Amino acid sequence: MERHFEQEFAALKDQLLAMGGRAENIVQKAMAALKTRNMALANEVFLDDRQIDALELAIDERSVNLLALRQPLAGDLRFITAALKITNDLERVGDHAVNIAGSAIRLAEQPQLKPLVDLPRMADMASGMLHDALDAFVRRDAETARRLVRRDDEVDDLNTQVFRELITFMIEDPHTITRAMELILVARNLERVADLATNVAEEVVFIAEARVIKHHAEQFAEQDDFGRT
Amino acid sequence: MERHFEQEFAALKDQLLAMGGRAENIVQKAMAALKTRNMALANEVFLDDRQIDALELAIDERSVNLLALRQPLAGDLRFITAALKITNDLERVGDHAVNIAGSAIRLAEQPQLKPLVDLPRMADMASGMLHDALDAFVRRDAETARRLVRRDDEVDDLNTQVFRELITFMIEDPHTITRAMELILVARNLERVADLATNVAEEVVFIAEARVIKHHAEQFAEQDDFGRT
Repeated sequence: MERHFEQEFAALKDQLLAMGGRAENIVQKAMAALKTRNMALANEVFLDDRQIDALELAIDERSVNLLALRQPLAGDLRFITAALKITNDLERVGDHAVNIAGSAIRLAEQPQLKPLVDLPRMADMASGMLHDALDAFVRRDAETARRLVRRDDEVDDLNTQVFRELITFMIEDPHTITRAMELILVARNLERVADLATNVAEEVVFIAEARVIKHHAEQFAEQDDFGRT
Repeated sequence: MERHFEQEFAALKDQLLAMGGRAENIVQKAMAALKTRNMALANEVFLDDRQIDALELAIDERSVNLLALRQPLAGDLRFITAALKITNDLERVGDHAVNIAGSAIRLAEQPQLKPLVDLPRMADMASGMLHDALDAFVRRDAETARRLVRRDDEVDDLNTQVFRELITFMIEDPHTITRAMELILVARNLERVADLATNVAEEVVFIAEARVIKHHAEQFAEQDDFGRT
């Protein structure tokens, strides 16, 4: 029985890593579609997203079954409940990639506004964060996870910079408005992917230390009125 | 023991409803701040968001404890695992309200672009969906939940309409660009709130019928390669 639990638990970890890998890939694929104006690649993103959706259901089902049949305690219980939240986050990464692919398709019909430099960098940062967050999750490595929370600030800064640059384009030449708008929305989607990677990292600290850094709870002590234990 | 479980379970439902109520309110408050250009109200949104964050932690803690100590089965187990996902969704509603409050603050420094009609309507629709989704959740009412999934399409349509109108403003008068951009982002945030309400509704169908409508899984049968059970 104990050995059976270990096997199922290992299978859960493998599936989570597989889902994380697909989440990284779909972001990179959507950005490649945008950068190279490749419609076939953009269309692949929609199919990949459905596979990520299916993985969420499969992992959740496995998690609920593990809870029902094995009744794990302490660290393993926290790992499985965190997995339920993480699949929610990774599923949403797929949605953001779909939004980017939609922008890629609409932009391909118009002349290129400018060579893309900052957006691919944002995409690399966001998908790198996803990779490291999932890796930290399966290794229960709280130190790596903590560093990720700080990397999110760099992505936010880049998002602000891209936003300002594109607004300037719009103001100087109104013909650029629809294209610049699409790129602003792409940047927002990438920034959200980095946020979701940060959420995963926060879950890692939660399970590794059974202590919550989410929402910077440490600096916010006045929560008694919610009946916290 | 059984009675104790019932009490804790009832407390979990009450807390979820309270969190749902705060999620509705924070969206309405952020919109009121935007509409009436009321800075004090916008600042309240930031504080309310931290209370919603704290509620997520409190409810998750209660859910994990219920799983650990009571080892519920079948319907109750699904209810609790769905609760973990729903708090994740409601917490994000607070983040979207914070984004709207930020737009309200920046817009208050500039002349009003136009009277707001469609955005408050979107906010009413989105917070109404949140209300009905949470209500359906505690009553395990799958029928109401199903109807919500359709209401999400109406919000999407309104978002598209608002987007087109504001792009027209920008093109006709570049002086409106920054303000129109803020309003486009507000509409995006409201559309995301409706999406999150839809996620909650999908969890309701999941627990009520132990069957998944998420991602329209019914129309997507080729999922064998993920080892679904």
